[in-house]
Amino acid sequence: MQKIKGVIPPMLTPFTETGELDLDAHLFNVDRWNAAALRGYLVLGSNSEAAYLTENEKLDLIRQTVQAAAPGRMIMVGTGMESTRETIRLTNLAAKEGAHAALLLTPAYYIDKMSDSALLQHFTTVADQADIPILIYNVPKYTHLNVSVNLIAELSQHPNIMGMKDSSGNVAQLVQFQAAAAPDFNILVGTVSIWYPALLLGVRATITALANLAPDACVRIQTLVEEGQLSEAEALYRRVFPLNHAVTGPFGVAGLKYAANLLGYKGGFVRSPLQDLDAAGRAKIEAIVAKAQPL
Amino acid sequence: MQKIKGVIPPMLTPFTETGELDLDAHLFNVDRWNAAALRGYLVLGSNSEAAYLTENEKLDLIRQTVQAAAPGRMIMVGTGMESTRETIRLTNLAAKEGAHAALLLTPAYYIDKMSDSALLQHFTTVADQADIPILIYNVPKYTHLNVSVNLIAELSQHPNIMGMKDSSGNVAQLVQFQAAAAPDFNILVGTVSIWYPALLLGVRATITALANLAPDACVRIQTLVEEGQLSEAEALYRRVFPLNHAVTGPFGVAGLKYAANLLGYKGGFVRSPLQDLDAAGRAKIEAIVAKAQPL
Amino acid sequence: MQKIKGVIPPMLTPFTETGELDLDAHLFNVDRWNAAALRGYLVLGSNSEAAYLTENEKLDLIRQTVQAAAPGRMIMVGTGMESTRETIRLTNLAAKEGAHAALLLTPAYYIDKMSDSALLQHFTTVADQADIPILIYNVPKYTHLNVSVNLIAELSQHPNIMGMKDSSGNVAQLVQFQAAAAPDFNILVGTVSIWYPALLLGVRATITALANLAPDACVRIQTLVEEGQLSEAEALYRRVFPLNHAVTGPFGVAGLKYAANLLGYKGGFVRSPLQDLDAAGRAKIEAIVAKAQPL
Amino acid sequence: MQKIKGVIPPMLTPFTETGELDLDAHLFNVDRWNAAALRGYLVLGSNSEAAYLTENEKLDLIRQTVQAAAPGRMIMVGTGMESTRETIRLTNLAAKEGAHAALLLTPAYYIDKMSDSALLQHFTTVADQADIPILIYNVPKYTHLNVSVNLIAELSQHPNIMGMKDSSGNVAQLVQFQAAAAPDFNILVGTVSIWYPALLLGVRATITALANLAPDACVRIQTLVEEGQLSEAEALYRRVFPLNHAVTGPFGVAGLKYAANLLGYKGGFVRSPLQDLDAAGRAKIEAIVAKAQPL
Repeated sequence: MQKIKGVIPPMLTPFTETGELDLDAHLFNVDRWNAAALRGYLVLGSNSEAAYLTENEKLDLIRQTVQAAAPGRMIMVGTGMESTRETIRLTNLAAKEGAHAALLLTPAYYIDKMSDSALLQHFTTVADQADIPILIYNVPKYTHLNVSVNLIAELSQHPNIMGMKDSSGNVAQLVQFQAAAAPDFNILVGTVSIWYPALLLGVRATITALANLAPDACVRIQTLVEEGQLSEAEALYRRVFPLNHAVTGPFGVAGLKYAANLLGYKGGFVRSPLQDLDAAGRAKIEAIVAKAQPL
Repeated sequence: MQKIKGVIPPMLTPFTETGELDLDAHLFNVDRWNAAALRGYLVLGSNSEAAYLTENEKLDLIRQTVQAAAPGRMIMVGTGMESTRETIRLTNLAAKEGAHAALLLTPAYYIDKMSDSALLQHFTTVADQADIPILIYNVPKYTHLNVSVNLIAELSQHPNIMGMKDSSGNVAQLVQFQAAAAPDFNILVGTVSIWYPALLLGVRATITALANLAPDACVRIQTLVEEGQLSEAEALYRRVFPLNHAVTGPFGVAGLKYAANLLGYKGGFVRSPLQDLDAAGRAKIEAIVAKAQPL
Repeated sequence: MQKIKGVIPPMLTPFTETGELDLDAHLFNVDRWNAAALRGYLVLGSNSEAAYLTENEKLDLIRQTVQAAAPGRMIMVGTGMESTRETIRLTNLAAKEGAHAALLLTPAYYIDKMSDSALLQHFTTVADQADIPILIYNVPKYTHLNVSVNLIAELSQHPNIMGMKDSSGNVAQLVQFQAAAAPDFNILVGTVSIWYPALLLGVRATITALANLAPDACVRIQTLVEEGQLSEAEALYRRVFPLNHAVTGPFGVAGLKYAANLLGYKGGFVRSPLQDLDAAGRAKIEAIVAKAQPL
Repeated sequence: MQKIKGVIPPMLTPFTETGELDLDAHLFNVDRWNAAALRGYLVLGSNSEAAYLTENEKLDLIRQTVQAAAPGRMIMVGTGMESTRETIRLTNLAAKEGAHAALLLTPAYYIDKMSDSALLQHFTTVADQADIPILIYNVPKYTHLNVSVNLIAELSQHPNIMGMKDSSGNVAQLVQFQAAAAPDFNILVGTVSIWYPALLLGVRATITALANLAPDACVRIQTLVEEGQLSEAEALYRRVFPLNHAVTGPFGVAGLKYAANLLGYKGGFVRSPLQDLDAAGRAKIEAIVAKAQPL
């Protein structure tokens, strides 16, 4: 199984003021991200407002990103759907567009029926039929479902399940996932809020919102840890922490996009029912961005 | 605003063993439901596994149901999507197929951002642009979001928002919704588990899973209440309660479909990741159905 | 098993401004409640700030209430503690003071260990050794634990467990408790917010905060239902509902005490860490009390 | 403000088979713990079944522990009660018995009223009137309340509030507490499940169940980190992790006590409603203890 190492931004998706997909702005951003030492890109993550995109928009974004990405970048796609069959279908459409791996949300609508048995069957079936390797995306904040250690232990044995992204933020559980999973299973953390401790626990990759805004800082934390410069790594982690918290917690995607604008990216507008920041929110993001400098 | 009175099944969607939409089985069921004194049909509800249907399958189901429904039946459709624009688009496609009203899930993916303000904007925009009246669908069990009394107070004033389906099961909150909403706002309850007390509190309609299986009993509870035969109504409510509980709680849609088979409907199979009942589950449903007779 | 019928206030406990127990104020209140057709009194309920009382204060309140209560009133006491042995000890001390029955909170500190088996053992042991009958107090709002239908089915068979107070507000679950419990098991509801529907479902008693403020109205709703005057009963229920909501929900015990003052009782002050209402809160309670009149 | 550094066991409380406090067994354990390089002892923690102890038992335990502790050990006591006044009273009784500091549970019975304002008033009042320094005990698992970063920022300024024990296990929040608190505020973590990452983040003390069973291992993880032997520290942390998980998670205090017996301590029995382990549970603990060796 391929080992994934490095930083991957779950790319924000810029929309115009009337809510249209702004592919030009997206390509502008990819171009800038290409300049950083990122491992790859996630198209259609939670930070991409994937829940608000049509299938055509999704495939457009994948195609354009595959073409625009710097050589060697891993293109991951968020093609998890509620049904097993649609997940397979969309994943394989993405594979045809050139995606390298699929990061799959846990289905969760009928949450009380999503037993380990149901999820095992779902992910195994998808992995069996997918044309590209898959990863499990554990994000209880949005799905209200937390995958169990036992489930990961089983799924990690599958030859076409290359890893998981854990966005739970639960470090103790992360340690349990590591102990239970097959040795070559890639465990990526889904937030910079535990990036430094995760690195010290042997995690080697992250897919994190902050990499949209501060790719170099996210990469540098890892480099510093690998070089044994722990106090510098910790200091940088603590410096960017508040910005990460702001754009993943209280201000969410709207905050991420506004901060992106401030930092020279093209964040664009959010899609309704998300709401863009009001003046007070913008002022707070401005202050937080200023304080996090240099990024 | 039109007053809605009566019982509406959120129609189960039969699938073949390989997971294909079985429209023939669906039409067989509609034909049987046509024989009961139902007020209408909900296409694409939670019990319809709408989360697992493609857009084409959704439109097929709407079209076929509109054509097959007995005259005078209200055709309601579950066309709520995460984004405002997709909700409008799908609702208006459904309207073109002949749907009479749309029952719209609260968007909930970015749940911590779905403030009253965001939901007010979402539903108001949809109501403004929808070609048919809309109803709000409050189902915290699946969305993990409970609409507020204040939000309903505001939305109930909109000329194109004709009501809500409340599946929270919270009777005290139901009383608050009634007190806060505009007088002509239709409040439907979403489960037979409170159908009898809701009727005594002036509720006049329900969209309830049990109406798939026992439409006559659901209708008769209402008739008995209206005729003042409360003890008969209560007795019937208590008799069907365990079956309703089984097919909405522990056994869910798989239980609903198996019970439908037992009662002469064509339940068909569930779609993965849902799992059909095992032998123990089937035996329990058989016992519960037997005990609920006559339906 | 004795059948309990009627309305029982969970008596508020007046404190002086410096936080001392104000027994004179308490006796003043008992005297006024004696004038209403109440079934009895609950000493040491959640509305009594029992969590803030010392053992001596608890026994004083029980003794004084026993002596001051009008003849025939049932004196119930909240003597549930976290440990089985302390629950037995305090219950039997209360029995010596003349209490007639004990309403026992579910122990819940080690909540993930409070299985049905643990709770069955706890309540059975207490019931075996208590000198007075006991009732189970289900109040998930405070304990974060909801007793199961199966547990109630078992406990209801015990000759010294006379019933339960269900403050969950969950009407569907209430119907399940009724179906599962032994026929002579008393199920009391713990809030006026479902008092009218509960009466229509055969419930015959309530222990409800509002009975502190509006005992006659609480009693009259029951009388009206028993006389078959449902629309009058429902109208009164809806009229007092907002006051009940205010003093059990957003304003809590501080609201209950301030409303008591407005209505001629001696509410007194709350104990820290509870906080008395600020001016805005007081104004809201004043408006809500005014609107609920006559009580 | 005194800096706290090192490992403190929240001492288990041994009971006899009939549920009596077994002070001899307790002193036996203290004697063994005295041989380890522990910083001090917590009497009356969650692992001490403090919720099941009478006031006399609490004071006996404090007195005996003060007398039996090796010189220089910090004696911390869990004297947080629901009411402010009782918390002050019990804390000062403990101070008279020789306790050095009090670790105070957040009051949480009326949880929806425990705003930052109410908790600020509570802890400030206690700190003002306590004869010994206090620490805040954040344990959402039991209280269902998580203290806010803002509250800690404020409380950390108080000259008599020396720190907090955070048992939430939330590493990202721990980083926020560190950033917000006054520089000399002691932040202790409440579980070995994050002990290694917490040390790497600058935490210098822990109060952890595992220190009852494996004090040397808990201390050694810290020593290794301080000596820069990170891979040895991490390896030891990962080795003891499953035992810590077992006795704090699925098996709880009963598991802790049984493991203590296996390891030469006198664990004794739990108090009802807790239940001692059954044969299957004992076998699992035996296996987990065996695998964690040497401790």
